[in-house]
Amino acid sequence: MKQGKLAVAVAIVVLLVAGAALATTTVSKDVTDTSVQEENVKCVNCHLKENNAMVQQWKNSPHAAAQDGQVGCYNCHAAEPGEPAAYMHEGALIRTLQSPRDCAFCHEQEVQQMEKSHHATAGQIMASLDNVLGEIVCSMESKAGAASGCWQCHGSVVKVLKGSNGKALLNENQAVMFDPATYPNSGIGRLNPDGTQGSCTACHGRHSFRSSVARQPENCGKCHLGPDHPQMEAYKESKHGIAYYTAVRERGMNAMNILKSGKWVLGKDYYTAPTCATCHMGATLKSDGSVTANTHNVGDRISWNLRAPISVKLNRVIFADGDEADIPGDIAPQVGQERKYKKYVMTNGEWSKVDAVGEVIEVKSWEMRREDMQVVCNQCHGVQVIGNFYKQFDELVVTYNEKFAKPTKKLYEMAKKEGLVSGSLFHTKLGWQWWEMWHHEGRRARHGASKMAPDYTHWHGLYDVAENFYHEFLPELMRLAAEHDKLPLFEKAVDDILAKPEHQWWKEGFDASVMKSIRDEQKTRYKQ
Amino acid sequence: MKQGKLAVAVAIVVLLVAGAALATTTVSKDVTDTSVQEENVKCVNCHLKENNAMVQQWKNSPHAAAQDGQVGCYNCHAAEPGEPAAYMHEGALIRTLQSPRDCAFCHEQEVQQMEKSHHATAGQIMASLDNVLGEIVCSMESKAGAASGCWQCHGSVVKVLKGSNGKALLNENQAVMFDPATYPNSGIGRLNPDGTQGSCTACHGRHSFRSSVARQPENCGKCHLGPDHPQMEAYKESKHGIAYYTAVRERGMNAMNILKSGKWVLGKDYYTAPTCATCHMGATLKSDGSVTANTHNVGDRISWNLRAPISVKLNRVIFADGDEADIPGDIAPQVGQERKYKKYVMTNGEWSKVDAVGEVIEVKSWEMRREDMQVVCNQCHGVQVIGNFYKQFDELVVTYNEKFAKPTKKLYEMAKKEGLVSGSLFHTKLGWQWWEMWHHEGRRARHGASKMAPDYTHWHGLYDVAENFYHEFLPELMRLAAEHDKLPLFEKAVDDILAKPEHQWWKEGFDASVMKSIRDEQKTRYKQ
Amino acid sequence: MKQGKLAVAVAIVVLLVAGAALATTTVSKDVTDTSVQEENVKCVNCHLKENNAMVQQWKNSPHAAAQDGQVGCYNCHAAEPGEPAAYMHEGALIRTLQSPRDCAFCHEQEVQQMEKSHHATAGQIMASLDNVLGEIVCSMESKAGAASGCWQCHGSVVKVLKGSNGKALLNENQAVMFDPATYPNSGIGRLNPDGTQGSCTACHGRHSFRSSVARQPENCGKCHLGPDHPQMEAYKESKHGIAYYTAVRERGMNAMNILKSGKWVLGKDYYTAPTCATCHMGATLKSDGSVTANTHNVGDRISWNLRAPISVKLNRVIFADGDEADIPGDIAPQVGQERKYKKYVMTNGEWSKVDAVGEVIEVKSWEMRREDMQVVCNQCHGVQVIGNFYKQFDELVVTYNEKFAKPTKKLYEMAKKEGLVSGSLFHTKLGWQWWEMWHHEGRRARHGASKMAPDYTHWHGLYDVAENFYHEFLPELMRLAAEHDKLPLFEKAVDDILAKPEHQWWKEGFDASVMKSIRDEQKTRYKQ
Repeated sequence: MKQGKLAVAVAIVVLLVAGAALATTTVSKDVTDTSVQEENVKCVNCHLKENNAMVQQWKNSPHAAAQDGQVGCYNCHAAEPGEPAAYMHEGALIRTLQSPRDCAFCHEQEVQQMEKSHHATAGQIMASLDNVLGEIVCSMESKAGAASGCWQCHGSVVKVLKGSNGKALLNENQAVMFDPATYPNSGIGRLNPDGTQGSCTACHGRHSFRSSVARQPENCGKCHLGPDHPQMEAYKESKHGIAYYTAVRERGMNAMNILKSGKWVLGKDYYTAPTCATCHMGATLKSDGSVTANTHNVGDRISWNLRAPISVKLNRVIFADGDEADIPGDIAPQVGQERKYKKYVMTNGEWSKVDAVGEVIEVKSWEMRREDMQVVCNQCHGVQVIGNFYKQFDELVVTYNEKFAKPTKKLYEMAKKEGLVSGSLFHTKLGWQWWEMWHHEGRRARHGASKMAPDYTHWHGLYDVAENFYHEFLPELMRLAAEHDKLPLFEKAVDDILAKPEHQWWKEGFDASVMKSIRDEQKTRYKQ
Repeated sequence: MKQGKLAVAVAIVVLLVAGAALATTTVSKDVTDTSVQEENVKCVNCHLKENNAMVQQWKNSPHAAAQDGQVGCYNCHAAEPGEPAAYMHEGALIRTLQSPRDCAFCHEQEVQQMEKSHHATAGQIMASLDNVLGEIVCSMESKAGAASGCWQCHGSVVKVLKGSNGKALLNENQAVMFDPATYPNSGIGRLNPDGTQGSCTACHGRHSFRSSVARQPENCGKCHLGPDHPQMEAYKESKHGIAYYTAVRERGMNAMNILKSGKWVLGKDYYTAPTCATCHMGATLKSDGSVTANTHNVGDRISWNLRAPISVKLNRVIFADGDEADIPGDIAPQVGQERKYKKYVMTNGEWSKVDAVGEVIEVKSWEMRREDMQVVCNQCHGVQVIGNFYKQFDELVVTYNEKFAKPTKKLYEMAKKEGLVSGSLFHTKLGWQWWEMWHHEGRRARHGASKMAPDYTHWHGLYDVAENFYHEFLPELMRLAAEHDKLPLFEKAVDDILAKPEHQWWKEGFDASVMKSIRDEQKTRYKQ
Repeated sequence: MKQGKLAVAVAIVVLLVAGAALATTTVSKDVTDTSVQEENVKCVNCHLKENNAMVQQWKNSPHAAAQDGQVGCYNCHAAEPGEPAAYMHEGALIRTLQSPRDCAFCHEQEVQQMEKSHHATAGQIMASLDNVLGEIVCSMESKAGAASGCWQCHGSVVKVLKGSNGKALLNENQAVMFDPATYPNSGIGRLNPDGTQGSCTACHGRHSFRSSVARQPENCGKCHLGPDHPQMEAYKESKHGIAYYTAVRERGMNAMNILKSGKWVLGKDYYTAPTCATCHMGATLKSDGSVTANTHNVGDRISWNLRAPISVKLNRVIFADGDEADIPGDIAPQVGQERKYKKYVMTNGEWSKVDAVGEVIEVKSWEMRREDMQVVCNQCHGVQVIGNFYKQFDELVVTYNEKFAKPTKKLYEMAKKEGLVSGSLFHTKLGWQWWEMWHHEGRRARHGASKMAPDYTHWHGLYDVAENFYHEFLPELMRLAAEHDKLPLFEKAVDDILAKPEHQWWKEGFDASVMKSIRDEQKTRYKQ
């Protein structure tokens, strides 16, 4: 917490708003103000009855244990007049819904990094295939499929319910009411009524807020799991995950020291295993004795985009106006160039996606991002192991891209152009096959390889990609081609692809001696 | 343990059966009886050699640590003459197989609650689709698929092997032999030779029996997991599961206090996270300082049936004769009404399912069950969060019901009536598709939403339901309709369904501007 | 560690090589040699800067804590001149890659057992269907699919990169370079440049090497998981796994004592639950007070092969030349008989699989292997429970074999012979269906039953097998038969199979009264 800055801010504000303390957020932040402290006691006394466990969580949290003064209920929940979600509660103007702006008062750097990160943009899925799936294909008018599905990870657009007079509706407790489809929600890219993007409680769960929770893989695993991006599962089966989970009964130096207050530095505070946070966000001891900073910009050390239909390298640029964006490409943009990007803005309480063009003033190329990651690897691994691992990983991504993704994408686009299919990916079997190949199976292969998880790389990954390509997508394509009297055209296109060396086995079979050896082995081993 | 009652019971029984202690269950229960204590020592001395770990489990169990007197081997395993599974062993009449009747001697209330619960009926799957699958489709004459599959969770009908003389067969150790297909088995609804239903060791594993095990989600996860009801997986990925699992290294107040002896009250003994037991069975501190009772009637706080093809609300009724049953419906039955239900009864050692009609004397409506659950929620959450969560959950269930389940059920039944399919759900591809939609995919969506697990709700749930509905079930239905020359009839039926607003996208596509926005986004983000 | 032997060996070697200590592996092993100790300090001082966490892992390892003298970097990493991967580093001849030969200097018995085990042969997949899948179907020329997939578990053939002069290439740090596709790799059957097979770090992770890690299920779960052999998942859902995972918060005797140094004996050091290591490798207290030895021959207590298309019993034979092999069959070979087997040998740095014939001099039949396993079971379970469990398990395997695997294999082979399909299993849909039936679904059923995991046995197992058999394989077979004008031939073959009692339901349906009862139940329970 930045106590110095806080003190100055409080001093100034107190002069300006003296006498109206209980309705002013800024004064409420003063953890040494006795009237605020009294307010906190009032909250606790009542809520200890109503929501005992919630209050206990706070009482045993770092906020309650803060040395420079306890951060209590009212320090965070006090609202300013005019806030969209403010309401009077037991004599105080408060809000229940917190946004990153509130947390930033004390945790400014963390919020700034988060706001620039890919995490903060997770709610911007208005214009995405995933969103169409959730809101339309899997929902009715209530959008329940998205509300209980997509938005719980990505974040909802939180809406205050308003009456015909434009004022917020109040429930029987006189609390401002939220559209139930949009709240409760702690999706990491939540679009808040105050115009901010993000939700700190996505990782720092109410009301304990402990970093020790966010450091643990389970926390990331709320969203980073499942058929379409099994990062959690891949971590669990990797050597890294094994080292982490088998240390759960350890004490002392071989344990993970994960409950440590304050900084948690790899190579200094712990060395047994990395968690998700270690590699993607954590601080690391360097060979010169210095410590790299941790970061809340979670994508900062990622060099590949593994989510896209075809993987691309990722370069981060900062524009002249302070915006940041990931720009794909093997060669990073250069300072001084202009680049297009998309951003979300709130105008009159409504969010929209707008095109933007900015002048690049700073670049963090994919190579630089990878180097930052390798500083972490280097704590436990030699340079050849690290370099060779990245070669294995890169080759795997290239194999997915070149052998399967690019040919399939090309054939699918050709099928669209020639009228074999129409509508979205979700309107046809062929579309759905291509969608699952890149969005599910191909991601599993790529994420698996990135985390040294052989089972996800192969059995949940390329194995499924290959089965889809040879036995689902191609046959369905040829069926459609025949149906549309375009067989020769598509036969030629497919033949051209299958003529490449990596697909030769499909037409020419495997080497006869290999096949004989397999049959012999089966006979000797299993007598069958 | 109800020591008071035990003492009285023992006093009475001792008078009646004096002199035959070693063959009488009731005396054997007297933990202060020295002859029984001596018998216990005899058991332990020998079994410490034969099964050391088993004895150690008991030695470190609450039974061994009981303050009013150690509950030893013979206290539980003593049999009464005439019991179907009794046999002489080293001079004592014992049985190895225990039933809830035995546990009830000390744990009467827990057993009574369990016997009324849905858990106790888990073995009554003689007349269910699941059972046909396990015993017939996946088995041979040995019913091995059911024995190692279904029955391990649901419970077997335990059978004592009998000779031609009608007496129990004994093995080389002179122990009564059980049909190996039916025992070992600790399925929660096991049908025991003594006419009781249930198995306490399903959750309270031999021979430690610790409540601390039953409080942990892993315990429930033996059965509540997998493609057809992934409650365990859903819990794990939820905020609740994250709070629980990331507390594993905590000490003191932030830990879960899960090893506590005796009562374990949310808001008093722990507050960090709820486990399955917390919400469905656990005791909770209330706002007036009182503590709600825990319950072994596991469905008591559940308001929806999420297992059925179409979800319905659940009301619990107690009949005049003491029987209890769940009666479905948005409006609960009223006291004084009659209702039909099914029950299992043992007649001459054989179990059968019989129709019953009873007069309702007490009702716990779905609203009351939900209120009981919300008392637990309220420990950590405000009323608006709780209310809104239930709105999200209800809407999700309604979406599943109305958009997918009801139309599919209707079409499937029409296909049966019109002769497109015949036989059971498992005889045709169309049947199997409908089965998996409700029994697997639709349950995953519903269970996922109930536990705030977005990945299960969407990617393992409605996403799979939608893909099945649009790309598997409907095409197969139309194929069959064409094959049976009934295309117009089924085209009309399907068209009527697809004309509803929630299916409009299928024929009319998505909004063009949305689709353009998606393509633009892909271009900017991935250059593809 | 065999300190006695070490001392003698060192004494001899010191005389022979005096003066060249830093280039000689054998002297380097002397943990009391001061020049070696100095070398160790030198390594540590530098690497504490470069790879702090790696050094910390070692500092808190049993190697660093060894009472007879610390086992340091140079003790293990010293190389002998002429070794393929040796290079000069800071004045010492070292290698980074270790092989079982190095570990065997101190851990001779463990390595010998491992070298005879199925684990050591995991890298010998040159002639297997799995390998064709990974290296060809899912890869390009780089074999990336195998490198990041298969080989990470099975082990790669580690290759030193060589220049045109035949000498090893050195990187910028003057370290010998490895082919990045083959290293890093810690697959358990890794084929090392020194001609050994295996990788101790597969289970004993660098650089802590703690047995406590290898004892934990997560360690085995790196490879024994996933759609094709979910041993880890099956364990987790079993009563054994539940007992293990719910003990994670326990202290004292109810905990697992898993961090114990030295021997870890079931019934003596712990009794709460078995891990994978307990049953397959661990030491157990016996009823006579003696302790069975633990073993690094991991298959020693396994009586069934559950991986093959059709399961067979496994007998272990030792040949006159010391080789060992698993010989399938219900009746074990006898001493004095000759048997064929396959082995891998390295000739001139290249590995090849060769046929071998040996005279059997010792036999461990499947019954003897099973008895060894049952000694472990007996710690917690009575003999009837153990015997009956094995009957349930055997019946499940027989059901898979007889009802599904044998008929499907027969039909597939007939389809090949009659020209309905050609090429490998991966060339046709029918082939892929049969492959997944035995390699994925059927294994899940069999592994599930072996570990008392009902969900894997049924829902992930026989349920999927049955659905595949009736609704995928048979329809595809008939489609192909029609396409090839061979319908009558195949109809007869299929009819013969479906006429068997276990398939009768398919043509004759279920009992009408059962079906009525199911419909009644649905009506009463769900009103639908």
